[in-house]
Amino acid sequence: MADYIEPLELLVEQFRRLPGVGRKSAVRMAFGVVEMSQEEAEAFIGTLTEARARLQTCTVCGNISEGALCPICADPRRDTSVICVVEDAKALLAMERVKDFRGVYHVLGGTISPIHGRGPDDLAIASLLERVKAGGVSEVIVATNPTLDGETTALYLSRLLKPLGVRTTRLAYGIPVGGDLDYADEMTLLRAMDGRKEL
Amino acid sequence: MADYIEPLELLVEQFRRLPGVGRKSAVRMAFGVVEMSQEEAEAFIGTLTEARARLQTCTVCGNISEGALCPICADPRRDTSVICVVEDAKALLAMERVKDFRGVYHVLGGTISPIHGRGPDDLAIASLLERVKAGGVSEVIVATNPTLDGETTALYLSRLLKPLGVRTTRLAYGIPVGGDLDYADEMTLLRAMDGRKEL
Repeated sequence: MADYIEPLELLVEQFRRLPGVGRKSAVRMAFGVVEMSQEEAEAFIGTLTEARARLQTCTVCGNISEGALCPICADPRRDTSVICVVEDAKALLAMERVKDFRGVYHVLGGTISPIHGRGPDDLAIASLLERVKAGGVSEVIVATNPTLDGETTALYLSRLLKPLGVRTTRLAYGIPVGGDLDYADEMTLLRAMDGRKEL
Repeated sequence: MADYIEPLELLVEQFRRLPGVGRKSAVRMAFGVVEMSQEEAEAFIGTLTEARARLQTCTVCGNISEGALCPICADPRRDTSVICVVEDAKALLAMERVKDFRGVYHVLGGTISPIHGRGPDDLAIASLLERVKAGGVSEVIVATNPTLDGETTALYLSRLLKPLGVRTTRLAYGIPVGGDLDYADEMTLLRAMDGRKEL
Protein backbone atom coordinates (compact mmCIF):
# COMPACT_ATOMS: atom_id res chain seq x y z
CA MET A 1 0.00 0.00 0.00
CA ALA A 2 1.28 3.41 -0.91
CA ASP A 3 1.47 5.92 1.88
CA TYR A 4 0.15 9.29 0.93
CA ILE A 5 0.78 12.59 2.68
CA GLU A 6 -1.13 12.79 5.92
CA PRO A 7 -4.09 14.99 4.91
CA LEU A 8 -4.77 12.70 1.95
CA GLU A 9 -4.47 9.61 4.17
CA LEU A 10 -6.93 11.24 6.57
CA LEU A 11 -9.44 11.66 3.75
CA VAL A 12 -8.92 8.04 2.67
CA GLU A 13 -9.34 6.85 6.26
CA GLN A 14 -12.62 8.75 6.69
CA PHE A 15 -14.13 7.40 3.47
CA ARG A 16 -13.10 3.87 4.44
CA ARG A 17 -15.29 4.20 7.52
CA LEU A 18 -18.34 4.25 5.26
CA PRO A 19 -20.03 0.89 4.57
CA GLY A 20 -18.89 -0.96 1.46
CA VAL A 21 -15.93 1.34 0.78
CA GLY A 22 -12.55 -0.39 0.35
CA ARG A 23 -9.14 1.25 0.13
CA LYS A 24 -9.13 1.61 -3.67
CA SER A 25 -12.56 3.30 -3.67
CA ALA A 26 -11.63 5.48 -0.71
CA VAL A 27 -8.47 6.67 -2.50
CA ARG A 28 -10.51 7.52 -5.60
CA MET A 29 -13.02 9.41 -3.48
CA ALA A 30 -10.28 11.25 -1.56
CA PHE A 31 -8.79 12.41 -4.87
CA GLY A 32 -12.28 13.49 -5.86
CA VAL A 33 -12.25 15.83 -2.86
CA VAL A 34 -8.68 16.95 -3.64
CA GLU A 35 -9.68 17.83 -7.19
CA MET A 36 -12.67 19.89 -6.11
CA SER A 37 -12.19 23.66 -6.14
CA GLN A 38 -12.19 25.39 -2.75
CA GLU A 39 -15.84 26.40 -3.27
CA GLU A 40 -16.91 22.92 -4.34
CA ALA A 41 -15.17 21.33 -1.35
CA GLU A 42 -16.83 23.82 1.02
CA ALA A 43 -20.25 23.13 -0.53
CA PHE A 44 -19.65 19.37 -0.30
CA ILE A 45 -18.63 19.43 3.36
CA GLY A 46 -21.18 22.13 4.24
CA THR A 47 -24.03 20.08 2.80
CA LEU A 48 -22.89 16.92 4.61
CA THR A 49 -22.81 18.89 7.88
CA GLU A 50 -26.22 20.47 7.30
CA ALA A 51 -27.91 17.26 6.14
CA ARG A 52 -26.55 15.26 9.10
CA ALA A 53 -27.71 17.97 11.53
CA ARG A 54 -31.25 17.87 10.09
CA LEU A 55 -31.59 14.11 10.50
CA GLN A 56 -33.44 12.95 13.60
CA THR A 57 -35.19 9.81 14.75
CA CYS A 58 -38.99 9.54 14.74
CA THR A 59 -40.19 9.59 18.36
CA VAL A 60 -42.88 6.99 17.59
CA CYS A 61 -41.29 4.39 15.31
CA GLY A 62 -37.57 5.15 15.25
CA ASN A 63 -37.47 5.81 11.49
CA ILE A 64 -35.10 8.54 10.28
CA SER A 65 -36.98 11.79 10.25
CA GLU A 66 -36.61 15.51 9.85
CA GLY A 67 -38.99 16.39 12.68
CA ALA A 68 -40.38 14.63 15.77
CA LEU A 69 -42.54 12.42 13.51
CA CYS A 70 -41.40 10.68 10.34
CA PRO A 71 -43.49 11.17 7.17
CA ILE A 72 -45.18 7.80 7.72
CA CYS A 73 -46.21 8.35 11.36
CA ALA A 74 -47.34 11.87 10.44
CA ASP A 75 -49.59 10.55 7.63
CA PRO A 76 -53.22 10.22 8.88
CA ARG A 77 -54.02 7.79 6.02
CA ARG A 78 -51.68 5.11 7.39
CA ASP A 79 -53.29 2.24 9.29
CA THR A 80 -51.86 2.34 12.81
CA SER A 81 -53.46 -1.03 13.68
CA VAL A 82 -50.76 -2.91 11.73
CA ILE A 83 -47.15 -2.46 12.78
CA CYS A 84 -44.34 -3.80 10.59
CA VAL A 85 -41.19 -4.37 12.65
CA VAL A 86 -37.92 -3.83 10.74
CA GLU A 87 -34.27 -3.95 11.74
CA ASP A 88 -33.35 -0.50 10.48
CA ALA A 89 -34.44 2.50 8.42
CA LYS A 90 -32.90 0.96 5.27
CA ALA A 91 -35.23 -2.04 5.54
CA LEU A 92 -38.17 0.28 6.23
CA LEU A 93 -37.47 2.24 3.05
CA ALA A 94 -37.14 -1.05 1.12
CA MET A 95 -40.63 -2.05 2.38
CA GLU A 96 -42.01 1.36 1.41
CA ARG A 97 -40.80 0.89 -2.16
CA VAL A 98 -43.36 -1.94 -2.51
CA LYS A 99 -46.09 0.73 -2.18
CA ASP A 100 -48.48 -1.97 -0.93
CA PHE A 101 -48.20 -1.79 2.83
CA ARG A 102 -50.46 0.88 4.39
CA GLY A 103 -49.66 0.20 8.04
CA VAL A 104 -46.95 1.78 10.16
CA TYR A 105 -43.48 0.66 11.24
CA HIS A 106 -41.28 0.03 14.23
CA VAL A 107 -37.50 0.22 13.81
CA LEU A 108 -35.68 -2.15 16.17
CA GLY A 109 -32.21 -0.77 15.60
CA GLY A 110 -30.68 -4.17 14.81
CA THR A 111 -31.21 -7.75 15.87
CA ILE A 112 -30.48 -9.88 18.88
CA SER A 113 -26.99 -11.22 18.17
CA PRO A 114 -25.12 -13.17 20.83
CA ILE A 115 -22.00 -13.21 18.62
CA HIS A 116 -21.94 -9.41 18.45
CA GLY A 117 -22.92 -9.10 22.11
CA ARG A 118 -26.30 -7.50 21.31
CA GLY A 119 -29.16 -8.54 23.55
CA PRO A 120 -32.86 -7.57 23.62
CA ASP A 121 -32.10 -4.53 25.79
CA ASP A 122 -30.03 -3.00 23.00
CA LEU A 123 -33.07 -2.93 20.71
CA ALA A 124 -36.23 -0.78 20.70
CA ILE A 125 -38.35 -3.67 22.04
CA ALA A 126 -39.78 -1.98 25.16
CA SER A 127 -41.17 0.85 23.04
CA LEU A 128 -42.75 -1.71 20.67
CA LEU A 129 -44.48 -3.47 23.56
CA GLU A 130 -45.71 -0.10 24.85
CA ARG A 131 -47.22 0.71 21.47
CA VAL A 132 -49.04 -2.63 21.45
CA LYS A 133 -50.17 -2.32 25.08
CA ALA A 134 -51.55 1.17 24.37
CA GLY A 135 -54.16 -0.66 22.28
CA GLY A 136 -55.58 -0.41 18.77
CA VAL A 137 -52.94 -2.74 17.31
CA SER A 138 -54.36 -5.86 15.61
CA GLU A 139 -51.23 -7.25 13.94
CA VAL A 140 -47.48 -7.04 14.22
CA ILE A 141 -45.62 -8.18 11.10
CA VAL A 142 -42.05 -9.10 12.00
CA ALA A 143 -39.95 -8.21 8.95
CA THR A 144 -36.46 -8.75 10.32
CA ASN A 145 -33.94 -10.05 7.77
CA PRO A 146 -34.11 -13.80 6.95
CA THR A 147 -30.79 -14.43 8.71
CA LEU A 148 -30.07 -16.43 11.84
CA ASP A 149 -30.08 -13.29 13.99
CA GLY A 150 -33.20 -12.01 12.25
CA GLU A 151 -35.04 -15.30 12.88
CA THR A 152 -33.92 -15.38 16.51
CA THR A 153 -35.20 -11.86 17.00
CA ALA A 154 -38.52 -12.68 15.28
CA LEU A 155 -39.04 -15.70 17.53
CA TYR A 156 -38.14 -13.67 20.62
CA LEU A 157 -40.63 -10.95 19.65
CA SER A 158 -43.43 -13.44 18.94
CA ARG A 159 -43.07 -14.84 22.46
CA LEU A 160 -43.45 -11.37 23.96
CA LEU A 161 -46.27 -10.29 21.64
CA LYS A 162 -48.57 -13.33 21.63
CA PRO A 163 -49.47 -13.04 25.36
CA LEU A 164 -50.64 -9.50 24.56
CA GLY A 165 -53.31 -10.99 22.27
CA VAL A 166 -51.97 -9.42 19.11
CA ARG A 167 -51.66 -11.35 15.85
CA THR A 168 -47.96 -11.80 15.14
CA THR A 169 -46.83 -12.69 11.62
CA ARG A 170 -43.57 -13.14 9.80
CA LEU A 171 -42.77 -12.30 6.19
CA ALA A 172 -43.03 -15.38 3.95
CA TYR A 173 -39.92 -16.99 2.57
CA GLY A 174 -40.07 -15.20 -0.67
CA ILE A 175 -37.11 -13.19 0.52
CA PRO A 176 -33.88 -15.09 -0.23
CA VAL A 177 -32.52 -16.87 2.85
CA GLY A 178 -29.35 -15.24 4.15
CA GLY A 179 -30.10 -12.08 2.16
CA ASP A 180 -30.74 -8.49 3.10
CA LEU A 181 -34.13 -6.77 2.70
CA ASP A 182 -32.44 -3.70 1.29
CA TYR A 183 -31.30 -5.67 -1.77
CA ALA A 184 -34.60 -7.47 -2.45
CA ASP A 185 -36.59 -6.37 -5.49
CA GLU A 186 -40.13 -5.02 -5.23
CA MET A 187 -41.85 -8.17 -6.53
CA THR A 188 -40.04 -10.42 -4.07
CA LEU A 189 -40.97 -8.11 -1.21
CA LEU A 190 -44.59 -7.97 -2.42
CA ARG A 191 -44.86 -11.77 -2.53
CA ALA A 192 -43.20 -12.07 0.84
CA MET A 193 -45.75 -9.62 2.24
CA ASP A 194 -48.74 -11.45 0.65
CA GLY A 195 -47.58 -14.86 1.89
CA ARG A 196 -46.86 -13.78 5.45
CA LYS A 197 -47.48 -16.49 8.03
CA GLU A 198 -48.58 -16.73 11.64
CA LEU A 199 -45.59 -17.02 13.97
CA MET B 1 -35.97 5.25 -7.56
CA ALA B 2 -37.19 5.80 -4.06
CA ASP B 3 -37.29 9.35 -2.82
CA TYR B 4 -35.92 9.74 0.66
CA ILE B 5 -36.50 12.61 3.06
CA GLU B 6 -34.58 15.68 1.97
CA PRO B 7 -31.58 15.55 4.35
CA LEU B 8 -30.96 11.95 3.33
CA GLU B 9 -31.28 12.82 -0.35
CA LEU B 10 -28.78 15.65 0.22
CA LEU B 11 -26.27 13.18 1.65
CA VAL B 12 -26.84 10.80 -1.29
CA GLU B 13 -26.42 13.67 -3.74
CA GLN B 14 -23.11 14.76 -2.18
CA PHE B 15 -21.63 11.26 -2.22
CA ARG B 16 -22.70 10.83 -5.84
CA ARG B 17 -20.46 13.79 -6.73
CA LEU B 18 -17.42 11.68 -5.84
CA PRO B 19 -15.77 9.76 -8.69
CA GLY B 20 -16.97 6.18 -9.21
CA VAL B 21 -19.92 6.46 -6.82
CA GLY B 22 -23.32 5.44 -8.23
CA ARG B 23 -26.72 5.88 -6.60
CA LYS B 24 -26.73 2.52 -4.81
CA SER B 25 -23.27 3.12 -3.29
CA ALA B 26 -24.17 6.71 -2.39
CA VAL B 27 -27.32 5.52 -0.57
CA ARG B 28 -25.29 2.96 1.37
CA MET B 29 -22.73 5.62 2.29
CA ALA B 30 -25.45 8.11 3.29
CA PHE B 31 -26.94 5.50 5.62
CA GLY B 32 -23.43 4.99 6.97
CA VAL B 33 -23.45 8.65 8.01
CA VAL B 34 -27.01 8.37 9.36
CA GLU B 35 -26.02 5.42 11.52
CA MET B 36 -23.00 7.18 13.02
CA SER B 37 -23.46 8.61 16.50
CA GLN B 38 -23.44 12.41 16.78
CA GLU B 39 -19.77 12.29 17.91
CA GLU B 40 -18.74 9.94 15.09
CA ALA B 41 -20.47 12.12 12.49
CA GLU B 42 -18.78 15.24 13.86
CA ALA B 43 -15.38 13.52 13.80
CA PHE B 44 -16.02 12.29 10.24
CA ILE B 45 -17.01 15.70 8.89
CA GLY B 46 -14.43 17.53 11.03
CA THR B 47 -11.61 15.38 9.68
CA LEU B 48 -12.77 15.85 6.09
CA THR B 49 -12.80 19.62 6.65
CA GLU B 50 -9.38 19.67 8.32
CA ALA B 51 -7.73 17.34 5.80
CA ARG B 52 -9.06 19.31 2.84
CA ALA B 53 -7.85 22.59 4.39
CA ARG B 54 -4.34 21.18 4.86
CA LEU B 55 -3.99 20.10 1.22
CA GLN B 56 -2.05 22.49 -1.00
CA THR B 57 -0.28 22.33 -4.34
CA CYS B 58 3.52 22.12 -4.56
CA THR B 59 4.81 25.47 -5.89
CA VAL B 60 7.48 23.70 -7.96
CA CYS B 61 5.83 20.64 -9.52
CA GLY B 62 2.10 20.97 -8.82
CA ASN B 63 1.90 17.74 -6.79
CA ILE B 64 -0.48 17.72 -3.83
CA SER B 65 1.40 18.87 -0.79
CA GLU B 66 1.05 19.93 2.81
CA GLY B 67 3.51 22.84 2.57
CA ALA B 68 4.96 24.99 -0.23
CA LEU B 69 7.05 22.01 -1.41
CA CYS B 70 5.83 18.43 -1.82
CA PRO B 71 7.85 15.63 -0.15
CA ILE B 72 9.54 14.83 -3.48
CA CYS B 73 10.66 18.39 -4.34
CA ALA B 74 11.79 18.84 -0.72
CA ASP B 75 13.94 15.69 -0.87
CA PRO B 76 17.60 16.65 -1.65
CA ARG B 77 18.32 13.07 -2.80
CA ARG B 78 16.02 13.36 -5.81
CA ASP B 79 17.67 13.98 -9.17
CA THR B 80 16.32 17.31 -10.43
CA SER B 81 17.92 16.80 -13.85
CA VAL B 82 15.18 14.35 -14.87
CA ILE B 83 11.59 15.57 -14.87
CA CYS B 84 8.72 13.12 -15.29
CA VAL B 85 5.62 14.88 -16.63
CA VAL B 86 2.31 13.40 -15.43
CA GLU B 87 -1.32 14.37 -15.93
CA ASP B 88 -2.26 14.53 -12.27
CA ALA B 89 -1.20 13.72 -8.70
CA LYS B 90 -2.84 10.27 -8.95
CA ALA B 91 -0.50 9.33 -11.83
CA LEU B 92 2.47 10.77 -9.90
CA LEU B 93 1.70 8.59 -6.91
CA ALA B 94 1.32 5.57 -9.22
CA MET B 95 4.83 6.25 -10.60
CA GLU B 96 6.19 6.63 -7.07
CA ARG B 97 4.89 3.18 -6.15
CA VAL B 98 7.42 1.70 -8.62
CA LYS B 99 10.17 2.96 -6.26
CA ASP B 100 12.58 3.04 -9.23
CA PHE B 101 12.41 6.60 -10.49
CA ARG B 102 14.71 9.00 -8.60
CA GLY B 103 13.99 12.14 -10.61
CA VAL B 104 11.34 14.77 -9.98
CA TYR B 105 7.89 15.41 -11.43
CA HIS B 106 5.78 17.99 -13.14
CA VAL B 107 1.99 17.77 -12.83
CA LEU B 108 0.23 19.10 -15.93
CA GLY B 109 -3.26 19.18 -14.45
CA GLY B 110 -4.82 17.22 -17.32
CA THR B 111 -4.29 16.84 -21.06
CA ILE B 112 -4.93 18.84 -24.17
CA SER B 113 -8.45 17.75 -25.15
CA PRO B 114 -10.25 19.54 -27.97
CA ILE B 115 -13.43 17.56 -27.20
CA HIS B 116 -13.49 18.85 -23.62
CA GLY B 117 -12.40 22.31 -24.69
CA ARG B 118 -9.06 22.09 -22.89
CA GLY B 119 -6.13 23.70 -24.70
CA PRO B 120 -2.43 24.02 -23.78
CA ASP B 121 -3.13 27.21 -21.79
CA ASP B 122 -5.27 25.24 -19.34
CA LEU B 123 -2.27 23.08 -18.38
CA ALA B 124 0.90 23.80 -16.38
CA ILE B 125 3.02 23.90 -19.54
CA ALA B 126 4.54 27.39 -19.16
CA SER B 127 5.91 26.46 -15.73
CA LEU B 128 7.40 23.26 -17.18
CA LEU B 129 9.19 25.24 -19.90
CA GLU B 130 10.46 27.66 -17.26
CA ARG B 131 11.89 24.81 -15.21
CA VAL B 132 13.70 23.47 -18.30
CA LYS B 133 14.92 26.93 -19.37
CA ALA B 134 16.29 27.54 -15.86
CA GLY B 135 18.85 24.89 -16.75
CA GLY B 136 20.16 21.69 -15.19
CA VAL B 137 17.49 19.51 -16.82
CA SER B 138 18.84 16.74 -19.06
CA GLU B 139 15.68 14.75 -19.74
CA VAL B 140 11.93 15.17 -19.66
CA ILE B 141 9.99 11.90 -19.54
CA VAL B 142 6.44 12.47 -20.75
CA ALA B 143 4.26 10.04 -18.79
CA THR B 144 0.81 11.19 -19.83
CA ASN B 145 -1.77 8.40 -20.08
CA PRO B 146 -1.67 6.21 -23.25
CA THR B 147 -4.93 7.70 -24.53
CA LEU B 148 -5.58 9.86 -27.57
CA ASP B 149 -5.50 13.03 -25.46
CA GLY B 150 -2.40 11.83 -23.60
CA GLU B 151 -0.57 11.12 -26.86
CA THR B 152 -1.60 14.48 -28.32
CA THR B 153 -0.28 16.23 -25.23
CA ALA B 154 2.99 14.26 -25.34
CA LEU B 155 3.54 15.19 -28.98
CA TYR B 156 2.74 18.82 -28.28
CA LEU B 157 5.21 18.90 -25.36
CA SER B 158 7.97 17.22 -27.38
CA ARG B 159 7.69 19.96 -30.02
CA LEU B 160 8.14 22.64 -27.37
CA LEU B 161 10.90 20.85 -25.47
CA LYS B 162 13.18 19.65 -28.28
CA PRO B 163 14.17 23.18 -29.41
CA LEU B 164 15.36 23.74 -25.82
CA GLY B 165 17.95 20.99 -26.31
CA VAL B 166 16.51 18.68 -23.68
CA ARG B 167 16.12 14.95 -24.24
CA THR B 168 12.39 14.22 -24.43
CA THR B 169 11.19 10.65 -23.92
CA ARG B 170 7.88 8.88 -23.66
CA LEU B 171 6.96 5.89 -21.51
CA ALA B 172 7.13 2.65 -23.57
CA TYR B 173 3.95 0.89 -24.57
CA GLY B 174 4.03 -1.46 -21.67
CA ILE B 175 1.12 0.47 -20.24
CA PRO B 176 -2.12 -0.89 -21.72
CA VAL B 177 -3.41 1.30 -24.56
CA GLY B 178 -6.52 3.21 -23.55
CA GLY B 179 -5.80 2.56 -19.88
CA ASP B 180 -5.09 4.76 -16.91
CA LEU B 181 -1.69 4.97 -15.14
CA ASP B 182 -3.41 4.85 -11.78
CA TYR B 183 -4.65 1.31 -12.46
CA ALA B 184 -1.38 -0.09 -13.86
CA ASP B 185 0.53 -2.54 -11.69
CA GLU B 186 4.09 -1.86 -10.53
CA MET B 187 5.76 -4.29 -12.96
CA THR B 188 3.99 -2.83 -15.98
CA LEU B 189 4.99 0.66 -14.89
CA LEU B 190 8.58 -0.48 -14.29
CA ARG B 191 8.82 -2.02 -17.79
CA ALA B 192 7.24 1.03 -19.33
CA MET B 193 9.84 3.17 -17.57
CA ASP B 194 12.77 0.93 -18.66
CA GLY B 195 11.64 0.80 -22.30
CA ARG B 196 11.01 4.55 -22.64
CA LYS B 197 11.65 5.89 -26.15
CA GLU B 198 12.85 9.14 -27.70
CA LEU B 199 9.91 11.25 -28.88
